[in-house]
Amino acid sequence: MESKIRAGIFGGSGYAGLDLVEILTGHPRIDLVFATSNTYAGDDVPGTSLKFAPADSVSLKQVDIIFLALPHTASAAMAKKGIDAGVKVVDLSADLRIDTPEAYEQSYHSPHPHPELLPTPYGLPEINREKIAGADVVATPGCYPTTTLLGIYPLLRLNALCAETPIIVDAKSGVTGAGRKPSLTTHFAEVYSNLIPYKTGRSHRHVGEMEQEAHKVSDQIGPIIFCPHLIPVDRGLMSSIYVTLNGTLESEELHDLYAEEYDGEALVDVLPAGEQATLKHAVKTNKCVISITPVLPRYAHITSVTDNLRKGAASQAVQNMNLMFGFDETMGLI
Amino acid sequence: MESKIRAGIFGGSGYAGLDLVEILTGHPRIDLVFATSNTYAGDDVPGTSLKFAPADSVSLKQVDIIFLALPHTASAAMAKKGIDAGVKVVDLSADLRIDTPEAYEQSYHSPHPHPELLPTPYGLPEINREKIAGADVVATPGCYPTTTLLGIYPLLRLNALCAETPIIVDAKSGVTGAGRKPSLTTHFAEVYSNLIPYKTGRSHRHVGEMEQEAHKVSDQIGPIIFCPHLIPVDRGLMSSIYVTLNGTLESEELHDLYAEEYDGEALVDVLPAGEQATLKHAVKTNKCVISITPVLPRYAHITSVTDNLRKGAASQAVQNMNLMFGFDETMGLI
Amino acid sequence: MESKIRAGIFGGSGYAGLDLVEILTGHPRIDLVFATSNTYAGDDVPGTSLKFAPADSVSLKQVDIIFLALPHTASAAMAKKGIDAGVKVVDLSADLRIDTPEAYEQSYHSPHPHPELLPTPYGLPEINREKIAGADVVATPGCYPTTTLLGIYPLLRLNALCAETPIIVDAKSGVTGAGRKPSLTTHFAEVYSNLIPYKTGRSHRHVGEMEQEAHKVSDQIGPIIFCPHLIPVDRGLMSSIYVTLNGTLESEELHDLYAEEYDGEALVDVLPAGEQATLKHAVKTNKCVISITPVLPRYAHITSVTDNLRKGAASQAVQNMNLMFGFDETMGLI
Amino acid sequence: MESKIRAGIFGGSGYAGLDLVEILTGHPRIDLVFATSNTYAGDDVPGTSLKFAPADSVSLKQVDIIFLALPHTASAAMAKKGIDAGVKVVDLSADLRIDTPEAYEQSYHSPHPHPELLPTPYGLPEINREKIAGADVVATPGCYPTTTLLGIYPLLRLNALCAETPIIVDAKSGVTGAGRKPSLTTHFAEVYSNLIPYKTGRSHRHVGEMEQEAHKVSDQIGPIIFCPHLIPVDRGLMSSIYVTLNGTLESEELHDLYAEEYDGEALVDVLPAGEQATLKHAVKTNKCVISITPVLPRYAHITSVTDNLRKGAASQAVQNMNLMFGFDETMGLI
Repeated sequence: MESKIRAGIFGGSGYAGLDLVEILTGHPRIDLVFATSNTYAGDDVPGTSLKFAPADSVSLKQVDIIFLALPHTASAAMAKKGIDAGVKVVDLSADLRIDTPEAYEQSYHSPHPHPELLPTPYGLPEINREKIAGADVVATPGCYPTTTLLGIYPLLRLNALCAETPIIVDAKSGVTGAGRKPSLTTHFAEVYSNLIPYKTGRSHRHVGEMEQEAHKVSDQIGPIIFCPHLIPVDRGLMSSIYVTLNGTLESEELHDLYAEEYDGEALVDVLPAGEQATLKHAVKTNKCVISITPVLPRYAHITSVTDNLRKGAASQAVQNMNLMFGFDETMGLI
Repeated sequence: MESKIRAGIFGGSGYAGLDLVEILTGHPRIDLVFATSNTYAGDDVPGTSLKFAPADSVSLKQVDIIFLALPHTASAAMAKKGIDAGVKVVDLSADLRIDTPEAYEQSYHSPHPHPELLPTPYGLPEINREKIAGADVVATPGCYPTTTLLGIYPLLRLNALCAETPIIVDAKSGVTGAGRKPSLTTHFAEVYSNLIPYKTGRSHRHVGEMEQEAHKVSDQIGPIIFCPHLIPVDRGLMSSIYVTLNGTLESEELHDLYAEEYDGEALVDVLPAGEQATLKHAVKTNKCVISITPVLPRYAHITSVTDNLRKGAASQAVQNMNLMFGFDETMGLI
Repeated sequence: MESKIRAGIFGGSGYAGLDLVEILTGHPRIDLVFATSNTYAGDDVPGTSLKFAPADSVSLKQVDIIFLALPHTASAAMAKKGIDAGVKVVDLSADLRIDTPEAYEQSYHSPHPHPELLPTPYGLPEINREKIAGADVVATPGCYPTTTLLGIYPLLRLNALCAETPIIVDAKSGVTGAGRKPSLTTHFAEVYSNLIPYKTGRSHRHVGEMEQEAHKVSDQIGPIIFCPHLIPVDRGLMSSIYVTLNGTLESEELHDLYAEEYDGEALVDVLPAGEQATLKHAVKTNKCVISITPVLPRYAHITSVTDNLRKGAASQAVQNMNLMFGFDETMGLI
Repeated sequence: MESKIRAGIFGGSGYAGLDLVEILTGHPRIDLVFATSNTYAGDDVPGTSLKFAPADSVSLKQVDIIFLALPHTASAAMAKKGIDAGVKVVDLSADLRIDTPEAYEQSYHSPHPHPELLPTPYGLPEINREKIAGADVVATPGCYPTTTLLGIYPLLRLNALCAETPIIVDAKSGVTGAGRKPSLTTHFAEVYSNLIPYKTGRSHRHVGEMEQEAHKVSDQIGPIIFCPHLIPVDRGLMSSIYVTLNGTLESEELHDLYAEEYDGEALVDVLPAGEQATLKHAVKTNKCVISITPVLPRYAHITSVTDNLRKGAASQAVQNMNLMFGFDETMGLI
């Protein structure tokens, strides 16, 4: 029996934090030492013998790795502390996902709290496995970038997109994506029977992040038009992606190219041609599931789905941890 | 064309307040003069040319009647002001529903803020029509007492219940019943796919109110056991009532007696024998819909449903107003 | 008091039929004479004193107008009978919406059952008011074409679209859109918590219909890429439309142009700039509600919503009837 | 590594069958050899390399045990064949749950198809463990009897119930409880936003079964009044139970007695006093979760919840199988 790594979670009582607790307690090489929560301090951590601890009551000396499921900006500060203390850090917030302070300020409209941490390896293992493997700190992308980038990655690799036309992403997210803190936005009676577009076009903070990562793979890429919608389900995220090809290949060829590209990826499924990816394909799994429909020779419709709390957050964080410690990448995940 | 009554709503942006706005703006004898909201001050009042006004910016001199959809205790204070200013008052809160300060304190664990207002006529028109007709202030009962009391009223009138056994009420309420103020209780992801009992037994504040009113009709009545549940729908309330008869009549006779008792009531429907009342029978209507199932000679199952925001709140308040001004009781309601 | 028109509904027990019953029974100039249903023959027609009648038990001599909410191909046959009998016909099916037998066969993969009926005036009043006014038979478009065409109509009128790039329509429909006949597709447990794309690209039957009508307004139009999704709500339809402009105007100008175009249309609302159309804006109303978001100078995101059973079916059929009889177009609808 | 038992499922494509597939494929001692489905023959069996097989294409010689998730009466016939062929049988239908042909005929209104199979051990392990252990065929109870009987079992053991008053069970079931075969009852648009009581009182087929089993434990028991409701969720079952005690103990004592009774039961959780069992406590688990609320000295409210497809069907079937083969009772279940 191999020794265990000691892990702590900062922000364990949010929805991503709770899924992280569930995954880590079932992981064969992890000993979960603490989960912090200021709001629910003293309550049981589900499925464990722990109680949620106030953030200032735990010590970094107790652990080998910390997971940060903290609000924007609080996360960067704790990442800095973790690095200084010599523990590994998996950040689930957006704080470390942008490569430069300048680009960060453009998306977030305030200076980066710890520019010395940038750039941090971007924790999308299917694209960035090598950089994650050797890292002490990793920025795990959230549900929208993960689902969207995996949905177009083979096209980027093939330089097959038309650089003059936008990539259109009509995205739909379950309500846990809006966090656990109560607000009118997440009130049952406001969401039930409804469908709510928000921050559509290029105003959502994740547009810059998606374009940054896409450009690393291909320069054949137009602007991303991104229109997210809140849907009346608790979990699940769908990116419906509309792409224009540059003519180097035809849309009919895409399915096989996707299947080939993701062959060997345990956590990405490409559905058989003709089958459509639905939310249920991904919910409560750790996978991204993709379907491709050729529309016209130069146009295709791609549907990419994940569980926003799993491959879009907690399970991807664990996937990154596995790489950082040299464990099997899917340990505790399949 | 007859002249109009000027009405104002205090607390117009909650769910009951919004339904009240909708009903009053369609009422032929009402001119809605203002709707207050401190949270949403300045926003449009839906379906009108008004803006929500801060409560302290409106004057009682503008109106002939005020509707109070305010939080507990704030309502009694405003009722007092309204009475002193000579305007009629329809209170939708629970503040004026208990007859004595002593009983109030027992249910609410604090002294009544305005004991001089007690007792106030109890605004359940099908039971209490005469007292409401001449009143300047009326306490409109909420969804649980309305639905439950109408479900057992014919049995009370007939003195047919067994006084030694409890009346069991298993109640189910949509989430708007918990109000519009965001909380973890009403967070979409907490309620979705769930079913949540709360304050079961005799701990809910409305138990005392229901027993008070039931005892006015009959002394043949045991204690009420009341178990409410939050259900994952936005609107609608169901009281599933289990009664024991005292032997003066048999359960098989009940359906016809109910049909007779409510014959002529425009806002109470008794379904044909053998048909079950479902939530959809009542939602978005101003009615209470009742079905009766005989089980054993001395036992019956009664299902009573309302829209918690209509017959359980806003439309019943307007029904009371109609009586107070001598309008046709169902004006603006059917 | 003006005389009434006698109306009959063929297919009154489906979801569109039931909404039609509700609207017609509240219409001041209509006397609903019958509603047929073979499946529910003998059951009460809700809100009326009628019973559903078998289709072969009613006579066209009883009525001045018939509404056809019948399955594909059954509708054309009954339309023919109605025309021959001299009654006016409002068809809610797709049978008469295509102008030529050839185009029909291309979309429906079988010969048109009554080619002599083509072309029939296309019943989208905001676009085609004049032709409907004088017609004896009108083909009412369904929810997807209505919502989508109204969403792009001002752009078509202005010849502002780029003819070389597709119009992308990511559509979302509530389950009543799939009809009332039980199937695994509409089973609660299959749809709940799910989101299901189907017939995406150019394979849905309504693509040809939408392109036909769009081309009548403008020749500046590329192919329509149409990806519908089944969403877990009962009612409501959203078309999320992504358009490329041809440079004759900029996306920032669109909002005002839309507002101007639809100024005076009682059943189309253009939301204020910056506000997004949600499903709740339209559900249980007879309106189409539209929001426009400029994204880049040549790109815009348009959200168009309707209640699929109202403006997407029943209320639009009544709007057409009003025009056919010279009534006020919105009679019984606002 | 221990040898595996070969298992087959008859009726593998219904909702209980699909959960059974999922559980059996994760069971360390089971090799799933086939799953039959006439409706979905040829489709993939999810999570396996099997295809659904027509029932007449499989042989009982392939397996050591069969699970029957078949419709009423088809199940008894196949159970007979299995017994004759010498394979063990776990029946999930109601066919073998009634002890005598006479009682069966009373509940099901037709003669029992195979009276020679009666009585069959009743597969509720927490109550009947010993009889299941040695059995070749076991009748697994469904969701309503399992959830209700576990909710009152400690009271039965203590002979604490009042024999003169009924046990009232207000039950709520998710839609998968109604099966996968499409019908108007399970149509999304009929169930959504609704709450539907059905077969209330003593008319549901499971009343006789529950009384039969309760009487085996205690003669201190009145009639069961059972009112099931269809609720708009996919999974989960709640029995809200209202009991009258006979005075041998007080309701305040119940919680500790329940905790003691179920101490050591891995698949029954008694919540801490003051906490209410909600649907989410049980959904997607293999457990029954119970809360007890004392109301008055002689009255208590008990909430018992299960996942209707797990502890109310598939996982309980596997629990029975574990006992029949002498495996650890919770193998593959926790």
